[in-house]
Amino acid sequence: MSMKLMLIILDGMGDRPSEKLGGKTPLEAAQTPNMDFLAKIGISGIMDPIAPGIRAGSDTAHLSILGYDPYEVYTGRGPFEAAGEGLDLKHGDIAFRCNFSTVDEKMNVVDRRAGRIREGTHELAKALDGMEIDGVKVIFKESVEHRAVLVLRGDGLSPKISDADPHDLGPIHKVKALDDSEEAKRTAEIVNEFVKRSYEILKEHPVNLKRMEKGLMPANIVLPRGAGVVPRLESMEKRHNIRAGAIAGVSIVKGVCRLAGMEIIDVKGAKGSADSDFTAKIEAGMDYLKKGDMVLINMKAPDLFGHDGDPEGKKNIIEKIDASMEVLKDALDNTIIAITADHSTPCDVMDHSGDPVPLIIAGKGVRTDDIEVFGERAAAKGGIGRIKGGDLLNILMQLAGLSEKFGA
Amino acid sequence: MSMKLMLIILDGMGDRPSEKLGGKTPLEAAQTPNMDFLAKIGISGIMDPIAPGIRAGSDTAHLSILGYDPYEVYTGRGPFEAAGEGLDLKHGDIAFRCNFSTVDEKMNVVDRRAGRIREGTHELAKALDGMEIDGVKVIFKESVEHRAVLVLRGDGLSPKISDADPHDLGPIHKVKALDDSEEAKRTAEIVNEFVKRSYEILKEHPVNLKRMEKGLMPANIVLPRGAGVVPRLESMEKRHNIRAGAIAGVSIVKGVCRLAGMEIIDVKGAKGSADSDFTAKIEAGMDYLKKGDMVLINMKAPDLFGHDGDPEGKKNIIEKIDASMEVLKDALDNTIIAITADHSTPCDVMDHSGDPVPLIIAGKGVRTDDIEVFGERAAAKGGIGRIKGGDLLNILMQLAGLSEKFGA
Repeated sequence: MSMKLMLIILDGMGDRPSEKLGGKTPLEAAQTPNMDFLAKIGISGIMDPIAPGIRAGSDTAHLSILGYDPYEVYTGRGPFEAAGEGLDLKHGDIAFRCNFSTVDEKMNVVDRRAGRIREGTHELAKALDGMEIDGVKVIFKESVEHRAVLVLRGDGLSPKISDADPHDLGPIHKVKALDDSEEAKRTAEIVNEFVKRSYEILKEHPVNLKRMEKGLMPANIVLPRGAGVVPRLESMEKRHNIRAGAIAGVSIVKGVCRLAGMEIIDVKGAKGSADSDFTAKIEAGMDYLKKGDMVLINMKAPDLFGHDGDPEGKKNIIEKIDASMEVLKDALDNTIIAITADHSTPCDVMDHSGDPVPLIIAGKGVRTDDIEVFGERAAAKGGIGRIKGGDLLNILMQLAGLSEKFGA
Repeated sequence: MSMKLMLIILDGMGDRPSEKLGGKTPLEAAQTPNMDFLAKIGISGIMDPIAPGIRAGSDTAHLSILGYDPYEVYTGRGPFEAAGEGLDLKHGDIAFRCNFSTVDEKMNVVDRRAGRIREGTHELAKALDGMEIDGVKVIFKESVEHRAVLVLRGDGLSPKISDADPHDLGPIHKVKALDDSEEAKRTAEIVNEFVKRSYEILKEHPVNLKRMEKGLMPANIVLPRGAGVVPRLESMEKRHNIRAGAIAGVSIVKGVCRLAGMEIIDVKGAKGSADSDFTAKIEAGMDYLKKGDMVLINMKAPDLFGHDGDPEGKKNIIEKIDASMEVLKDALDNTIIAITADHSTPCDVMDHSGDPVPLIIAGKGVRTDDIEVFGERAAAKGGIGRIKGGDLLNILMQLAGLSEKFGA
């Protein structure tokens, strides 16, 4: 008889010992009675999201944890951002993350985020969406605040091109081919043309005229970056014969899951931020499992505190997330629960590191060990040992009785 | 902010429990306060230099530890010996390790080492260097004592050939192709011709006439072995954007590092033997890190005692090496230090075994564990768990803040 599968990913939760926390990591310092309970009744270990020492991104790590080889399918974050924004992508599309920015007449960026514009981006996006450049279809959609996604659909395109976004103030960058292929050269030209047209169209758009009247920065140009080609991912359903869903606040994780053929479950209050409604996400996950076989729940907040270099804040948010897990006890009868991170974001590094992440797996039939708390160094002594992210799904699937035998 | 990286490789240090040491390994029996200190403040683990159970050579293990796949790039030790002797090699060159030997008129080896000749080999080598055989250029250089290196440079060559050296007394071996390719057949013929010419040129060389006058064995033939093709290794600088150096007494390790594009740092008193000046090597390594990002220091001595089957001697030399590490404490502020071995050379085996090697990593940010001594069995309980040699550099690079993120 098969069980359900819940995979909770606390984004960037892994950390290093922090002086501010008396030599403990935020997870070790946090009071986490619910996760400790799962560690006690379950089994612990450490996991290299991609491979030992590799500094994983959230996108590449989620791909790996879902069983896809990021070295094979990942060329840039664009496709995952675009899929996360709900765009229906096709294998071969070239996708970009973009900013609405503000440039002066000499094409110098004066504000990369166009005054952190919040309103009117839908209208601005509509003015750009659907154009055609050199036979290539342009799909353009606004995202949160100053962010947007761009998709180029057509033949003979390549993701091997540089960013238009200078990532700083100053002249916008002319997009260049990063290899010698005709495809890269052509794609670079198309993006340069798109940038040029975005300025021509947006500079006198009513939304911007109104912003300027109010003394706000006009969102008068779009600057793409992070080009990637949309990969062909065999869906979870096809590969594993399971119905799988995902709950995540941030686009990039939603996008990975969506491209893996998972159902994206919208949860009110799931914002990908520190004031997300963690309980609502857990409850929505349990609810989804009434029909689905597996659900992935990503909680973005710990990563934010890691990037901010705030171990106290990270400890506190982990405690808050832990409190939302009280209800998980009700699921243990018929669910294999795994809690881990997609990567470490040590507060002392303020960026992703290549340190392994802690992992607990709990549920019926799990072998257990003598670890009774959830923490990086406790987990390193656990019964799972040290595994790779690419092995996790197989481990969980077989514990839930969802996988096929290989051989006789 | 990035740190420096020091990787100390105690050659062949790994061992098995020895009856002569009351069931301890030489490392476990040795008093090693400095390495114990690093174990205490750092994190321990065990490492399979290539993969579990594989009996690594020093060359293949160093390749693996530097991030190259030995199954892909290694065809024989020749290229690494030749590079270690300072020859500038090209991808595609076929290189050999050679002995100056003594044969009688019937081509029977009477002394494989030509009376362990020490003087005059430079003149002998000069008499052979630069010849051409069937359009192939011959590069030949003497090494330590009776040793030398041979390089064949030209098109249509293959390393798939047998040794001329019989590895014993008796008739010299006719070199044969080890596969059916034309290249292997041709290369075998060229080497046979080289061996023949070496005898013709050397048997009446003044150096040998003088030796015979003195009653010494003449170095009247050169017997190549260990053919390998020079691989194309992407340099450490290109691959990782770091400046890396190496300190080693033995050619084969110098050669691996040189082919990996590392700077070879000559240290007076670094001899690759038991009376090497270990302190000078450590200090030279620390000095190099003032400009470089990473330094690899190989200490050959433990391996020699392993091959000799001398656990007491191995224990003593490990203690001597440990004493040289006192100064490392000064480096801990800005350096990630790793100490490990390239392979195990158990005294009871008197050769390399496939046992994993112990590993400690210490420095700022390292997660630590509760291991407080350096030893094979203590390390097996450490927080690193069990890793592969091919993962080590990635782990160290990210701890030192020297690596790029993969993904977003």
